[in-house]
Amino acid sequence: MPHYKLVSRDNHPQNTVIKLGKTQIGKGITIIAGPCAVEDRETMLKTATALSALGVHILRGGAYKPRTSPYSFDGLGKEGLNILAEARKYSGLPFVTELTDVRHIDLLCAYADIIQVGSRNMHNFSLLKELGRIDHPVLLKRGLSATLEEWLLAAEYIMAEGNQNVILCERGIRSFDPYTRNTFDINAIPAMKNLSHLPLIADPSHGTGRRELVAPVARAALAAGADGIMVEVHPQPAQALSDGQQSLTLEEMAQIIAQLKSVTPQLAG
Amino acid sequence: MPHYKLVSRDNHPQNTVIKLGKTQIGKGITIIAGPCAVEDRETMLKTATALSALGVHILRGGAYKPRTSPYSFDGLGKEGLNILAEARKYSGLPFVTELTDVRHIDLLCAYADIIQVGSRNMHNFSLLKELGRIDHPVLLKRGLSATLEEWLLAAEYIMAEGNQNVILCERGIRSFDPYTRNTFDINAIPAMKNLSHLPLIADPSHGTGRRELVAPVARAALAAGADGIMVEVHPQPAQALSDGQQSLTLEEMAQIIAQLKSVTPQLAG
Amino acid sequence: MPHYKLVSRDNHPQNTVIKLGKTQIGKGITIIAGPCAVEDRETMLKTATALSALGVHILRGGAYKPRTSPYSFDGLGKEGLNILAEARKYSGLPFVTELTDVRHIDLLCAYADIIQVGSRNMHNFSLLKELGRIDHPVLLKRGLSATLEEWLLAAEYIMAEGNQNVILCERGIRSFDPYTRNTFDINAIPAMKNLSHLPLIADPSHGTGRRELVAPVARAALAAGADGIMVEVHPQPAQALSDGQQSLTLEEMAQIIAQLKSVTPQLAG
Amino acid sequence: MPHYKLVSRDNHPQNTVIKLGKTQIGKGITIIAGPCAVEDRETMLKTATALSALGVHILRGGAYKPRTSPYSFDGLGKEGLNILAEARKYSGLPFVTELTDVRHIDLLCAYADIIQVGSRNMHNFSLLKELGRIDHPVLLKRGLSATLEEWLLAAEYIMAEGNQNVILCERGIRSFDPYTRNTFDINAIPAMKNLSHLPLIADPSHGTGRRELVAPVARAALAAGADGIMVEVHPQPAQALSDGQQSLTLEEMAQIIAQLKSVTPQLAG
Repeated sequence: MPHYKLVSRDNHPQNTVIKLGKTQIGKGITIIAGPCAVEDRETMLKTATALSALGVHILRGGAYKPRTSPYSFDGLGKEGLNILAEARKYSGLPFVTELTDVRHIDLLCAYADIIQVGSRNMHNFSLLKELGRIDHPVLLKRGLSATLEEWLLAAEYIMAEGNQNVILCERGIRSFDPYTRNTFDINAIPAMKNLSHLPLIADPSHGTGRRELVAPVARAALAAGADGIMVEVHPQPAQALSDGQQSLTLEEMAQIIAQLKSVTPQLAG
Repeated sequence: MPHYKLVSRDNHPQNTVIKLGKTQIGKGITIIAGPCAVEDRETMLKTATALSALGVHILRGGAYKPRTSPYSFDGLGKEGLNILAEARKYSGLPFVTELTDVRHIDLLCAYADIIQVGSRNMHNFSLLKELGRIDHPVLLKRGLSATLEEWLLAAEYIMAEGNQNVILCERGIRSFDPYTRNTFDINAIPAMKNLSHLPLIADPSHGTGRRELVAPVARAALAAGADGIMVEVHPQPAQALSDGQQSLTLEEMAQIIAQLKSVTPQLAG
Repeated sequence: MPHYKLVSRDNHPQNTVIKLGKTQIGKGITIIAGPCAVEDRETMLKTATALSALGVHILRGGAYKPRTSPYSFDGLGKEGLNILAEARKYSGLPFVTELTDVRHIDLLCAYADIIQVGSRNMHNFSLLKELGRIDHPVLLKRGLSATLEEWLLAAEYIMAEGNQNVILCERGIRSFDPYTRNTFDINAIPAMKNLSHLPLIADPSHGTGRRELVAPVARAALAAGADGIMVEVHPQPAQALSDGQQSLTLEEMAQIIAQLKSVTPQLAG
Repeated sequence: MPHYKLVSRDNHPQNTVIKLGKTQIGKGITIIAGPCAVEDRETMLKTATALSALGVHILRGGAYKPRTSPYSFDGLGKEGLNILAEARKYSGLPFVTELTDVRHIDLLCAYADIIQVGSRNMHNFSLLKELGRIDHPVLLKRGLSATLEEWLLAAEYIMAEGNQNVILCERGIRSFDPYTRNTFDINAIPAMKNLSHLPLIADPSHGTGRRELVAPVARAALAAGADGIMVEVHPQPAQALSDGQQSLTLEEMAQIIAQLKSVTPQLAG
């Protein structure tokens, strides 16, 4: 059996809470929302302001995007980071963005509040080790078909180097049914909360790949014990340069938050 | 693309509600509970009476059990049906039990209130057709690795022969992670409720295979829109002849129902 | 760990060989071929005669077809059996056909030389038990997502009732890649030959679902130790009522056999 | 549908052949063998010399090893590269070794003949792009649960930057059966040879994870059209620091090559 040391709840019974301004990830419910990719300044600022008004706590948006094809739009790069920083200033929301290249780590740390490791890099151990040497919180997505053991040990890689600020993110596993893009692994929510003290966020957008399933799976994840949700939102999903099929409109996001407030006291304040 | 006729919500927008005494499956939350297999008269009567007192609506228990090995305990057969009928009399609860052989259909209909099709028989089309010719409600479990399309068409098999009283039951799919027995497919809950008008029950016992995950996944399934849950309960799980690892004690079942009552108005009455 | 008794090579070191007229399944290479379903008398007789001339040993053809949708063509039933019997008379080839309903067992035994259990019935334990009480050889296909353990124990179900004439058939497992219908599990070929003394046939037609992959996967299965292949052949695949996409023409089948003869001395005679 | 440009056989009908000294990868059968990791100088030199005598064409050995746990042995690093270079001098065999960190690319290019991208980095697009800017041949393993489309597009990433010397390597996919470590995808062999002009190597060691299955699956892969095999060999598998369970002894490797020579004319010379 694997030796989980730093990641294990056995060795650290109390929940880890990561503070980020007024937000406490791992205490109450944290809502992260935003577009798949930063596409242009105007859309991003408008989206950020609207999400802030809805009660979202953290902004998401990709400046460097891992794409299956080398010929797909892969993000605005540094320009995207500048736009995200401006969106933070206007909206007051901190932001999370994905690191896709170990050589960008200083650049991303200079801009972002939380560094995301995407599913495709969960097994990129040299990148994980470098993230262990910084202080920024790291949002560690589960790999495409990673076992719980592999996911826990990926977090252990970061923590073993010194950085204890790891946030886990369940985003679905690959399965056989073509109806959904991925299969959101609801079992993983209580299982990981039992096995580890780290905060756990659910990503029902990637976990389903279908807009109409995002809200019910978000509710399910919170009911199962997740510490928050991360949702893709785009003012005009049909025009999105990536992931439009699973992105919610601002109106749909407002409805989700209203629903959650009715059942989750932590959000009502 | 498949032609869903009778099973499809497109052709039948309103929810199907199946009445069984005072219970309405598909309206409010239905709780089904009981042991994996009927093991002996005394235990079954005690369990049934206790579950009735807790507010459970329907009793479950296997008299004919499909087992992977021909050398495993496979149920008490007709004696098990007699015990279930007696448990119904004492507890006032209707019961569901599994049909494993098309030649037993008259026997089971003479005893049971609901006939269950287990995962291993979801593709047993001759059995499905016979179930279409009776009036009893049929609880149709999803196959071990069945797609949503295959599951819908299995229901269509029953309905095409005349019996519209079909209840769907999600019980997890087979995946790669050894940590859980199956992967409960939470996406399937809202997806099937969108695609079909039939009632949908969640089985978090088989969907997880681990006792400590049953309650959170039950809550998740209801939050995602399931019409009820089916849970394995045994007075002494460690002594159970099958599925002990995933069975709850009566005390654990009482806790689940108390939790559900606090969040689900339909159960509070 | 499971107790494999009758199925296990540990308890029965020498290979089981099943004799059927001049054919010995489990000794040398056995070739089974024919259409997915019997469609009409003329086509079946023509196909059988041509396959016999090519050196095929056993004819296949479905009279009762398990179909995902209740509205699909599901075989000619008893008329199909009569056509198969006539094809046997003309071609001199014995035939295998699928049992889909336990109540048809006497009927099929009166006609067929080998009884097939399809993937969808590998877990149909009442059907397996009845097949244990007859003498006919049983071709037991692996279930859609069955583990090797489950497959071995399905054979054990038949053998525990008395019938030792079981032939295993690997036909692919369900996986995540939409490019192929199934993933042919080549590992299962040597693994099952190590674990069991039973003959093992490969079905590259269902194992791939694509015509152009059938020949290379057939060669691979034989190279890995399979005792034979079962291939879907149709004089006009584009007109086939089922499985046309994976059926070979008679010309393609002739090429496969010619290739095999060049590398497999047993076929050259 | 994806646009395969450089990787596609449609746009490049003839097979790509990559020359490496006397070896031509993509023409005839190429055999790559060696330990999972370089463990010490003496063992490596002994292994290399023995493999050269057996007729192996290319040496493998990891100096930087991706390991699931941060506490496992992860290779000798630069010292391992020096040992590999020495083994090349003694044995006359070129070697392939894995790149796990984009920042090591110059170092590895200074030592290795072929650069390997492991399964865990198939989706590491920044690493793939850098490999597109060098001239060394790249052995691109299929990701843990990558579709054929994703694998082809990973090759396209490298080729789009200029490096056309890509060798594909099938090493099994993740599936549900605990009996084998992975499921070797035999369908992928002819499918990828149809879709792409690139050479394709089979890795039956990782594809099965069990020593006794390596030889039959190697034969199967070659029968299905693979251009070669890559096999883990260790003088004393029980003492190996990683992957001992799937490593062959030198004697077992000798047997495999003898078997292959008897059926593969290209190796007989």
